Amino acid sequence: MAKNAPLSKQEARLIDAYWAATNYLSAAQIYLLANPLLREPLRPEHIKPRLLGHWGTTPGLNFCYAHLNRLIQARDLDMIYIMGPGHGGPAAVANAWLEGTYSEVYPEVPQDETGMQRLFRQFSFPGGVPSHVAPETPGSIHEGGELGYSLAHAFGAAFDNPDLTVACIVGDGEAETGPLAASWHANKFLDPVNDGAVLPILHLNGYKIANPAVLARIPEEELVQLFDGYGYNPYLVTGDDPAKMHQGMAAALDRAFDEIAAIQHGARTGKVHERRRWPMIILRTPKGWTGPQEVDGVPVEGTWRAHQVPLAGVRDNPEHLAQLETWLRSYRPERLFDDEGRPTAELRAMAPTGDRRMSANPHANGGLLLRPLVLPDFRGYAVPVDKPGTTSTEPTRRLGAFLRDVITANPDNFRIMGPDETASNRLGDVFEVTDRVFTGERHESDEHLAANGRVMEILSEHLCQGWLEGYLLTGRHGLFNSYEAFIHIVDSMFNQHAKWLKVTRHLPWRRPIASLNYLLSSHVWRQDHNGFTHQDPGFLDVVMNKKAEIVRVYLPPDANTLLSVGDHCLRSRDHINVVVAGKQPALNWLPMDAAVLHCTRGIGIWEWASTDGGADPDVVLACAGDIPTLETLAAVDLLRQHLPDLRVRVVNVIDLMRLQPAGEHPNGLTEPEYDALFTTDKPVIFAFHGYPYLIHRLTYRRNGHHNLHVRGYKEEGTTTTPFDMVMLNDLDRYHLVMDVIDRVPHLGGRVAHLRQRMADQRLALRAYTREHGEDAPEVRDWTWPY
Amino acid sequence: MAKNAPLSKQEARLIDAYWAATNYLSAAQIYLLANPLLREPLRPEHIKPRLLGHWGTTPGLNFCYAHLNRLIQARDLDMIYIMGPGHGGPAAVANAWLEGTYSEVYPEVPQDETGMQRLFRQFSFPGGVPSHVAPETPGSIHEGGELGYSLAHAFGAAFDNPDLTVACIVGDGEAETGPLAASWHANKFLDPVNDGAVLPILHLNGYKIANPAVLARIPEEELVQLFDGYGYNPYLVTGDDPAKMHQGMAAALDRAFDEIAAIQHGARTGKVHERRRWPMIILRTPKGWTGPQEVDGVPVEGTWRAHQVPLAGVRDNPEHLAQLETWLRSYRPERLFDDEGRPTAELRAMAPTGDRRMSANPHANGGLLLRPLVLPDFRGYAVPVDKPGTTSTEPTRRLGAFLRDVITANPDNFRIMGPDETASNRLGDVFEVTDRVFTGERHESDEHLAANGRVMEILSEHLCQGWLEGYLLTGRHGLFNSYEAFIHIVDSMFNQHAKWLKVTRHLPWRRPIASLNYLLSSHVWRQDHNGFTHQDPGFLDVVMNKKAEIVRVYLPPDANTLLSVGDHCLRSRDHINVVVAGKQPALNWLPMDAAVLHCTRGIGIWEWASTDGGADPDVVLACAGDIPTLETLAAVDLLRQHLPDLRVRVVNVIDLMRLQPAGEHPNGLTEPEYDALFTTDKPVIFAFHGYPYLIHRLTYRRNGHHNLHVRGYKEEGTTTTPFDMVMLNDLDRYHLVMDVIDRVPHLGGRVAHLRQRMADQRLALRAYTREHGEDAPEVRDWTWPY
Repeated sequence: MAKNAPLSKQEARLIDAYWAATNYLSAAQIYLLANPLLREPLRPEHIKPRLLGHWGTTPGLNFCYAHLNRLIQARDLDMIYIMGPGHGGPAAVANAWLEGTYSEVYPEVPQDETGMQRLFRQFSFPGGVPSHVAPETPGSIHEGGELGYSLAHAFGAAFDNPDLTVACIVGDGEAETGPLAASWHANKFLDPVNDGAVLPILHLNGYKIANPAVLARIPEEELVQLFDGYGYNPYLVTGDDPAKMHQGMAAALDRAFDEIAAIQHGARTGKVHERRRWPMIILRTPKGWTGPQEVDGVPVEGTWRAHQVPLAGVRDNPEHLAQLETWLRSYRPERLFDDEGRPTAELRAMAPTGDRRMSANPHANGGLLLRPLVLPDFRGYAVPVDKPGTTSTEPTRRLGAFLRDVITANPDNFRIMGPDETASNRLGDVFEVTDRVFTGERHESDEHLAANGRVMEILSEHLCQGWLEGYLLTGRHGLFNSYEAFIHIVDSMFNQHAKWLKVTRHLPWRRPIASLNYLLSSHVWRQDHNGFTHQDPGFLDVVMNKKAEIVRVYLPPDANTLLSVGDHCLRSRDHINVVVAGKQPALNWLPMDAAVLHCTRGIGIWEWASTDGGADPDVVLACAGDIPTLETLAAVDLLRQHLPDLRVRVVNVIDLMRLQPAGEHPNGLTEPEYDALFTTDKPVIFAFHGYPYLIHRLTYRRNGHHNLHVRGYKEEGTTTTPFDMVMLNDLDRYHLVMDVIDRVPHLGGRVAHLRQRMADQRLALRAYTREHGEDAPEVRDWTWPY
Repeated sequence: MAKNAPLSKQEARLIDAYWAATNYLSAAQIYLLANPLLREPLRPEHIKPRLLGHWGTTPGLNFCYAHLNRLIQARDLDMIYIMGPGHGGPAAVANAWLEGTYSEVYPEVPQDETGMQRLFRQFSFPGGVPSHVAPETPGSIHEGGELGYSLAHAFGAAFDNPDLTVACIVGDGEAETGPLAASWHANKFLDPVNDGAVLPILHLNGYKIANPAVLARIPEEELVQLFDGYGYNPYLVTGDDPAKMHQGMAAALDRAFDEIAAIQHGARTGKVHERRRWPMIILRTPKGWTGPQEVDGVPVEGTWRAHQVPLAGVRDNPEHLAQLETWLRSYRPERLFDDEGRPTAELRAMAPTGDRRMSANPHANGGLLLRPLVLPDFRGYAVPVDKPGTTSTEPTRRLGAFLRDVITANPDNFRIMGPDETASNRLGDVFEVTDRVFTGERHESDEHLAANGRVMEILSEHLCQGWLEGYLLTGRHGLFNSYEAFIHIVDSMFNQHAKWLKVTRHLPWRRPIASLNYLLSSHVWRQDHNGFTHQDPGFLDVVMNKKAEIVRVYLPPDANTLLSVGDHCLRSRDHINVVVAGKQPALNWLPMDAAVLHCTRGIGIWEWASTDGGADPDVVLACAGDIPTLETLAAVDLLRQHLPDLRVRVVNVIDLMRLQPAGEHPNGLTEPEYDALFTTDKPVIFAFHGYPYLIHRLTYRRNGHHNLHVRGYKEEGTTTTPFDMVMLNDLDRYHLVMDVIDRVPHLGGRVAHLRQRMADQRLALRAYTREHGEDAPEVRDWTWPY
């Protein structure tokens, strides 16, 4: 077979027919309510009242799918398909149905005329399926609503899956986004020995909603330079003549898969060590290919007008109706489907079978492949605590030791992602047993770099998040560690992943996957050296807007509680766990047994720190987060000294969701439970890690909420000292004492002096800091004295 | 002069001395408390107790600065300097001080030994200046805390500034981020005729915090291909020998500025029309260049160990102290500064003067150059409203007509940014008078593309935001229009800009700039067709965490109120205004006079919709947002029909900040004002556009908060119909009636039947929707009947 015409006539005819079938099924999803096989002339009542969907990208997606199927069959490939232009939802549904998967997953939509009618009707129809590729779509790990993450997901899926190939369509619109532009460099993090392959297919159809796409409007020379520069070997397939394009695409794919095989063979037999240029395809086809060329006298195919619905108002416009019928009949459905509406035998034979179907590949339903992590007993990493608050530990460093052994026990299905902060966040023990993944050039002064490692660091939170999502969605485990402030960079990705999980919860065929775990360290209260830009605890507010069944927020106050929380998160499924923990040396409060108990409860009275004798406090001092806990206990210490008769209760909160009413969150305390901790009528001074409003938002329905006074970060910061940070935000121990004085009734005149003393003391400490450039010893070296 | 050695010996010596001076001033900022000129041997007490700062990138920043100064002098250039590696704050401060600007802005830090000592002491010192380039730094429009936005800021600054050159240092760490990777393509949006020039200098110093940088570890061939592919003409300057590097950099800059001049000349004389390759520099130098080569036996210069403080523990480690002294003395401060600590005359002569100094360029303090917009009278675009709720208008389309004329009246200092959604958001009238900026290839089927236009569209919210920030910070005006859900993509950029504005509020020398205006359309309640991924109103929650003095949120319920709000936002300064408005046809409620009054108040009783006769309601129905307002008024209509005796008050909220206590936000209502609207004891059913918790968060301290019941988006969505969306979230008119029944006491048994009827009705409407695929006519065609 000629290299430029690798398909026999028969092969070419069949691929074209398969493509026509998926194009027909796609267009019909957008338009038809009834008459699915066009057995009768098209009438207005066959047409949906609202025409929704994106035709423009769909034929290109179908084209790639059909060609990749040929490769899967010819080479017995294990492949999944990521549709960056996920607005082309009809394509994914059409292919899944044609392969039979759709009817297996949704038996109410069988592979016959009845099923076809349902398939068309349900698309973008109330009670039906979304217009984009979505969790409901078999074979997908990638929602196509928000653009930018397809290639990161693809690489995430390929890591540690040496036999998998991930085909990833990147739309030229999506290619303009930042995350996608950075994602091309993921080829410097792919190990050809232990990872699978990613085949990016950049699909230039020229237009976005109303604008040309940037990459479609640069000279071909620049385009090739760009992808050469990104380290790929690009193959261009350009045109609009299907016959030529089938041969061109087949030839390009043959070459690409030959190259992939050669790269993997070279690396896996130890012959080649340097990074190689992986192949990619640049496919340039008209937008809305095979659709109406002209509508109402203006060109549509090949222009931005083909983006969504090329023919509008079809019910009321007989000309458009006729044009739609001509368009749909141009695929000749009668040759594609038999009398019962089943795809013809020769078409069915074109699709791979069983798990080889991209729509049925278990990697795209990762829960099917999920192996629980082998977890060492986290109690073995405990800090001994004889007395609370007398010794110090860097909590994340302790967690790092645990994670090190998690890595050892799970060498091929657990990764840690982070934007170059794993060591800075003091998880460095992991480098005793693993390296950072990097396949770029290496120098002598580098440390812990290797092609195969468990730690992935790139200065892009987007890539860290996207890689981890792809890794989790294909059935593996991981952790994303980040500076707290900059996790906001992926707010939107978090939102979309939470939405994905929420939907999968209601799809029994989607098996649970490992939770997405965030470890936020280098947090607001200890970025005093980096300054205001590094001080932002607001990610928690974003998280709390998502569905209660999905999100969890933990604020362990010390090393042992962090270990317990960490273990819990690594075992959980289908959640997004956010853990905020300090990396600086911090007092240890709880021995491990008490820590486990406290974490299991998620919230509790610290009797050893309280002075209410277990009942009837004058005031409740609540705290959530390591620094608020420290300041609260220091405040209790001051109160013990200066107001020894005051009955103080200390409540520590680890699991923030416990504060919500039980009816709103599965972890929420019942009303009696809440009242038993916080009382219904006593003042509560709540020292919180984040913005104080969040606590109010969680508790506004609680009894005694009018007595709740919250201190937290109120957006005051700069480059200064740790204590100055809490002072600037009135979260410091002296201010907490002042809050108690202001809110506990009947303390009488005896405390006016004490209040003044507290106010003076904090000003004196600020003066010390400004004089000496560091915190005063009484703050720095403070320990809990009881 | 030879092309490869353009500097005379004398010039080379002077540039090197200037560079040494800034390096000395930078290192000394990190280390010294006293002994600024090293007049005596260095002793521990001269050293700061906490060593903070980032040395690694600093010498490279200083190197570029010194060389750019030469070009400014030689060619009388108008240039600003953006430091992507903004952690190198010492460099910016050092140069500003050496140029004299620092002492002009901060007279307490004069250009002498006293000033030098203060300069060193204050750096990263409590009460002093931040460790990063910050608003406090003269000459900066770019905070260096969060990485990724330098190049977008640079292009934003260059738009409509034809005589300006923006030099932009891009660190190899930052270059890994998504936003930066996409920003290179901004050269397809720069008009060589009417815009200025951007000179990117990619600074490869090889390492991030602990890792090599990706672009530093690809073969030079790939590196060049990459930037060729991005459409630049890259000049490489590589080495560590200062003498050679000075000549190499000077030669590269000479060529680059020759090319810039040629491109601009060609375009401005009409000789060249096609897009040209703009020059860029790739500068490869050792990290921590000129710093300690080895510390404690391990290499530091040229490695990741030079990232922050190359010598630690200097106070306690005599060896490190000695090494520091050697390092500092290696710059020979005695030849750089005179006896009074002033820079020598020959150094001072190296710096440009007046506004030509990059640290004093007025473009970097944009408020100095700000011209107020010429605004047409927005009342002229009013929709006539004889009776409330009987006619429909697309609000954003009306705003588009206003914006069209804003553009006409302000042809060179107002731009609209959006990710390809300006037409989709129905602002299309602007294309009557302007085009979309695009300098890539153009095709016949394109519409409204031109090199010079007022609308900038790229499918990257990051670039839209970054460009607009750069544009505003240099003294111009603009608007960012986006789908509501995807504005989360720039949460973090919003945060950083809000922080920047907050700090500038306390710097009198920074003049107020135009507000950053977001128009969020295609919002949660009308993305029924696009589905769950497009449904997210949570940006408001992110916004509310920032300082009250900076942020504003407006929810105009119809076209006339949107016009009034739009006008207000375009006139405001130093704010971030978020406007959420619909693009679908929506009922008009207020004639323009009433709209202006309502917007001025920000909140008010709609007497014409209320049935409480101006006093003593049984229930308050509050609403904020267009769809909640619609559903509320439809609920009032139902209540009028079915419970004609019920005294209902309707309160509409446009300015969300009015709900906050007056003590917390300048727009907040006083307690009596609030109580007069909402009562202190009657049930309030609040229909809100966003997540309901936000209203609780704003009002938890208000009287009667326990009577407040909020309906809003509770994260339920899919591809469905508009009414189904409100129904899924219990925000629909029938549910609001049910809420009233459930909460107003003493309605008695007579309403049980009504409640059931409402519940049945909503189910019937859902059934209709699922049967017909569209909303029932009674919902679709509903108008306010009074």
